[in-house]
This record gives sequence, structure tokens and C-alpha cells, in this order.
Amino acid sequence: MKILAVDLGGTHASCALVEDAVILARDMVPIRDLALLGPALPPIQASLERLNRDGSAGGIGFGFCGLVDAPSSRVTSTNGKFEDAPDIDLVGWARSQLGLPLRLENDARLALLGECHAGAGKSETDVVMFTLGTGIGGVAMMDGRLLHGRHGQAGVLGGHVPVKLGGRRCTCGGVGCAESEASGWALPLVCAEWVNFKESALAQQEINFENLFACGAKGDRVALEIQRHCFNVWGATAVAAIHAFDPELLLYGGGVMKSAEIILPAIEEYVARYAWTPWGKVRIGAAQLGNDAALFGVVPLFCEESVRVR
Amino acid sequence: MKILAVDLGGTHASCALVEDAVILARDMVPIRDLALLGPALPPIQASLERLNRDGSAGGIGFGFCGLVDAPSSRVTSTNGKFEDAPDIDLVGWARSQLGLPLRLENDARLALLGECHAGAGKSETDVVMFTLGTGIGGVAMMDGRLLHGRHGQAGVLGGHVPVKLGGRRCTCGGVGCAESEASGWALPLVCAEWVNFKESALAQQEINFENLFACGAKGDRVALEIQRHCFNVWGATAVAAIHAFDPELLLYGGGVMKSAEIILPAIEEYVARYAWTPWGKVRIGAAQLGNDAALFGVVPLFCEESVRVR
Repeated sequence: MKILAVDLGGTHASCALVEDAVILARDMVPIRDLALLGPALPPIQASLERLNRDGSAGGIGFGFCGLVDAPSSRVTSTNGKFEDAPDIDLVGWARSQLGLPLRLENDARLALLGECHAGAGKSETDVVMFTLGTGIGGVAMMDGRLLHGRHGQAGVLGGHVPVKLGGRRCTCGGVGCAESEASGWALPLVCAEWVNFKESALAQQEINFENLFACGAKGDRVALEIQRHCFNVWGATAVAAIHAFDPELLLYGGGVMKSAEIILPAIEEYVARYAWTPWGKVRIGAAQLGNDAALFGVVPLFCEESVRVR
Repeated sequence: MKILAVDLGGTHASCALVEDAVILARDMVPIRDLALLGPALPPIQASLERLNRDGSAGGIGFGFCGLVDAPSSRVTSTNGKFEDAPDIDLVGWARSQLGLPLRLENDARLALLGECHAGAGKSETDVVMFTLGTGIGGVAMMDGRLLHGRHGQAGVLGGHVPVKLGGRRCTCGGVGCAESEASGWALPLVCAEWVNFKESALAQQEINFENLFACGAKGDRVALEIQRHCFNVWGATAVAAIHAFDPELLLYGGGVMKSAEIILPAIEEYVARYAWTPWGKVRIGAAQLGNDAALFGVVPLFCEESVRVR
């Protein structure tokens, strides 16, 4: 069955027509200037109509960048953009405007589904996927099913596990979250508070992970300390997820993973040292599908009944 | 149906005959001097035979103080006592010696089942229960089912979530676990490292939570600081569990809860401030069944097929 996919991010909606593990056609709808979801729906609809010109699609899988109650296909909470989304009936919109059934899921959950369908998690059933980028995402699948929980929040807040007692205030309202201690947006704040940071070459550059790791590779002492701090945060977050969800595999994606060759061994070492897994060793690997992961995720979202269960 | 219950702890096995929400008879088997499970089985068997003199019991529910693979009723990992347990076929023992089917579960999971059957969690489906004592236990139920996970470890290591980056080494091998930062065994270590601890009246007493809270109630400044540290650790652990398992209710049990009247409001305040729950408010309450919780747990363990699912 062919499925239309929408992966809605902050600046654009990726749309595609997907069949099994192949993206048959794709389209990009810029929505940077739109603060609300309502005004974004007509251009998304036009894109989906173009992609489905022959009418062969059997449904729409919609990935949304916020908290979602998947069983009812409703958005429950947003974070700064698309504030109108909880009031929009996307299922009704898809039926009336496109004549198709729609299933809604959180975008990070959908990406994990995609990796398990066509990427690094193929034939895996117990996986946690972290996305290291501007923020930190963390999503859990257990026994082949996405974890949803009573209010749709379970297993999807992996970046908001408190790992540093008395740490920095996070955008989620918490303190010391993984995201507020070692994400793209937090890194400049971490650096600003770091003792002797102005001695680092990084102080003369744009502060991002690429530059941090480049400085570290040159032996910059302060950069190496900050790098170690980030590895420890990501490592502790991995241990928290392992102790909570008991996975076989941890997958890592996101922009920061351009430096996978130094990040993955560091997390592997932390986990080997500090996780309690008498049964054996959690495997740790890189996600494979990049920004396409959520697009592939619509296939299992639609075709496998199991993923609809909590 | 009447069920025989065994709750195996470090110093004794509590045995009972339970029907629905009533303990019909009970017995205590001292095993303090026994390091292994094998030699403990004959006295446990004798106790169960006494309790089941009329032969009315339909099965045995067995709670074990270690990691358990419930679907196969095998012990997977122990922690300092009963090291022979992984090699013992308890199902075979029960069948051959007592002519009864046996189901094995981790003792903390069984206690949560009991609270949900006959105690503070009645008619609840999404609950995390913490036990604050010498160690810290934390167990999760989602959608009416105990969480088990691929290797039987999911949702049962709530005391071993790393909340303090670079914190104290824990008995589990991790660092900065809730248990190594604010449990009965960790409290003396926390105090020993606390700045100006010798100014506290607690320094002249046995260091335990009862005395800590008593000193705090008298306005002892250092005791109040340490108390605040423990509240923050328990609060962060609560937030981690809420973000992982999305419960409606957090239950607290264990010996430290003798001071429930100051602990529960402190955790409530921390959670209200730092947990991300746009759907509403997680309720926080005290467990009701004390040491009997696991005994009551054998009834749903046996009678409800749902709890056998991962």
C-alpha cells in the first residue's frame, strides 16, 4: 500500500509518497513564516495532491513536532510553534479535503518506527533512539511497539530526563535535563559558565559541537573538558534509558552525529562502565535514514496494527 | 481461588495463604543464616504445607529480591545473597514437592501489584511505586500491566536512575543513582562529605532518616540542607519516572515513609515545579499495605492473564 507522509518541522513540511521501504516521490513545503498550523494546511494539502495525482495512496501518516495522543490522532501539547494544533481535527481535515484516513504520531516516534522499518533498527523490537541536535530527543520502542503511556507522553521525553541535580533550567520547565546540559542550544550556555573558557580557542569561534570537537582534536584542554562533560551527560542519559526501558539497541541520530566516530565510542564506554545489564551488552549504533526516517515511519504506522497499541 | 504467597527477603521469608484481598493465614520463616536459596527451600516448603493443610491452594506466587524473568519464572540476577537462585528451577520444585504451579516475580513488582489489587493503587492502571528504605526501589505499571522489558529489567530499576552527574558510586555499578545519593545506606556517606556536617546535632547521633528529620524539625541548619538534598534527589527521580512512564499516580512506601508528612509534600512541590505534564497533575500518595503488599500481589499475579504480558 502506498502512503502519503508529512513530517512537519519548524521551518518546513517534508511530504512524500512512500511504498514499503521506497520513497516514490517527495516534496518540500516551506512554512518558516507560518506560526500556526491552520494556515500551513492548504499548501500541505496541495503538495499531497500533487504527490497523489494517480490517487493510489491509501492513507496519510502525519509526524508532528510536539506531544501527540496517537490513539486519538490529536496533538496534546506544543512548544512555541503551531499553538493552534491541539484544536485542529487533522483526521477530519484529511477525510474532507483529501478523502483519506490519517494517522498522527510524534515526529521522533515516527522516525524510530522508520529506522526499525527500513534503517538501522530493522528486525529490532526493543530500541531507544536519541536525536542529538539543537535539542535532544529520546524515544522508546518495547516489544515491537512504540511506548505511548496513559497521556501519550511515555518514552518520548528521553532528552528531558534530569541527569544533573541542581542543573540548568530547561525549556521543558525542568532542571538539569540532558537537553539543558548538552544540546545545541545549551552548549553556548555551558561554555559561558565554564571555568577558564576564554582560554579555549572555541571562545573565538561560533560555539557549536562541530567546532568543539575540532578544538578538542587539536588538544585544546578546555574544549576537551567540555567534550567530556557532554559525553557524561549523554552517557548518563543512555544509562537512564537502559534502566527504564531495557533495550537491546540504542540508536543515535541528529546533526551532532556528524562526529559519530568520537561520540559513539565515548557513549559505549560510559554504558559498559555504568549500566546494569547482567543479561549482556546493549548495542550502540548510528541511525541510518537521517531526515527521511519519519517518512519511512508512516508505512509501519499504517500497516502494523501492533504499533497502535499503547 | 486461594494462593500461597512467598515473599523472600534477606532475613526471612514471609509466607501466607491469600484469597482475594484477605490474608487467611501467615507464617514467617527465618533464613538470616542461609546465604543460598537451595537450603532455604525445605523450611519454606514446610511452611507452605502447614498453610495449605486442607489442600485448597491453587498455586504459589513467589516474590524474589533480585532481577527476575517473569515469563519464564527464572531468577536472572542477584545482589549479594542467594547467588544460586539463577540455577534453581523453582517451578519444578513447586510441582514436584508441593504439586502446585508456581509463578515468580521480582518482590518490588509484586508489591506494586498488591497495592493495585488491595491497597493505595486500587483501580489504577498507570502507577510508579517507590520504596524508600535501605535502598531505593522503583517499579512501573503501565496500562494495568507490570513493565517487564526484553530482559526482565524494564521499569524495575527506578532507584538506579542517574540523577547526579559525577555523583557517588552505587552498588549497582552506576554513579549518582538516586539510591547512592539519598538512601538509608548512602545517608551516612552523604553526611560524611557534607560541608560543616560536624556542626549538626546529627553528627552526635546514629545517622538515619528519622534522626535527620528530627534534627531538621528543631531547625538544625545543616540537617535541613541535607534534608533538602534528599528531597531534590527523590524529586528528580520522580520526574525521571514521570517522563519515562507517564503515570497517573506515584506511590511511596518503605521505612523512610514514617516521615511521610514532610516527604510527600516536598516531592509534590518538586514535581509540580519541574515535571512536564501538560495533561494535568500526577497524584502522589503513600502505599498502604506495608510489608504485606507483595503477599497480596500473588492474587493478581495468578489470576490476571494481563500481568503476564511484557
